Amino acid sequence: MATIAVMITNLFEDVEYTRPAEAFKAAGHRLVHLSTQPEGSVVKGKKEQTPVKIDQSVKGAKVDAFDALFIPGGYSPDQLRVDPKAVEFTREFVRSGKPVLSICHAPQLLITADVVRQRKITGYTSIVQDLKNAGAEFIDKEVVVDRNLVSSRNPNDIPAFIDASLKTIGHA
Amino acid sequence: MATIAVMITNLFEDVEYTRPAEAFKAAGHRLVHLSTQPEGSVVKGKKEQTPVKIDQSVKGAKVDAFDALFIPGGYSPDQLRVDPKAVEFTREFVRSGKPVLSICHAPQLLITADVVRQRKITGYTSIVQDLKNAGAEFIDKEVVVDRNLVSSRNPNDIPAFIDASLKTIGHA
Repeated sequence: MATIAVMITNLFEDVEYTRPAEAFKAAGHRLVHLSTQPEGSVVKGKKEQTPVKIDQSVKGAKVDAFDALFIPGGYSPDQLRVDPKAVEFTREFVRSGKPVLSICHAPQLLITADVVRQRKITGYTSIVQDLKNAGAEFIDKEVVVDRNLVSSRNPNDIPAFIDASLKTIGHA
Repeated sequence: MATIAVMITNLFEDVEYTRPAEAFKAAGHRLVHLSTQPEGSVVKGKKEQTPVKIDQSVKGAKVDAFDALFIPGGYSPDQLRVDPKAVEFTREFVRSGKPVLSICHAPQLLITADVVRQRKITGYTSIVQDLKNAGAEFIDKEVVVDRNLVSSRNPNDIPAFIDASLKTIGHA
């Protein structure tokens, strides 16, 4: 059983959180929701206003306490990447070698953390140029696994994303 | 009197459209709303759901028909940048030397169009790294004017943005 940090705030893409979260829990893993919002607050999805209760502010979060990091897409990553604590936590996590699960706009946070250089990655169409400019090798596939980094493009890729994520967590 | 193309779609930052639009019209300029959405459709703002009727699809739009290009921020630019026609129109516009007025997330569209290299520009905090990676010289000021390119960071900068935009349009 792994403890997975979910880095999330308002305007996340609902299904990019709900479906992997259900699959991770069904596989026996535990989710801890981190945010730039305070502990106990509720953030909401972009389309269906799915509520997610924040378990812990990213401010005091330690990479050591988690086995994997999951970053859902939508417009949540655009807000997370302006917070230095969220950026620093993400940077440390990627560098730790523990699994990092990134879907859709999630690489925006990875770009600000400067951890995509020379990494194979995929992401949502709108950020392809940003990924290339950041030094990443963009690959247009439903899921890309580069060592600890698992990435997918959009909601259509969710089944492949869940499958590769569970395998990567299992091997960690 | 100038004819200003407004490149806009859903989830624009309401005040970044409404306040400059009012000022441009008050100064005698004409606005033509272009979008990836079809002519006659209505796009809406992110916070106040301000409705904006689309005058023309960007698909058939010609740079020659306009004197300036205005790109409001919010999450509208993230959607515009996935459309090759919107990207091509923007690229041609910047290269034409005519005024391009960019606020908040608008530079995302300029990055995909690859027209910020070696340009002085500002924009919203979340995209600073994307601008630097794209080869731009990011400047943290309320308004930056680099030849035909006028840019501001966020809603607080709107008065300075309007002032610099009207001056740049006036000199064009």
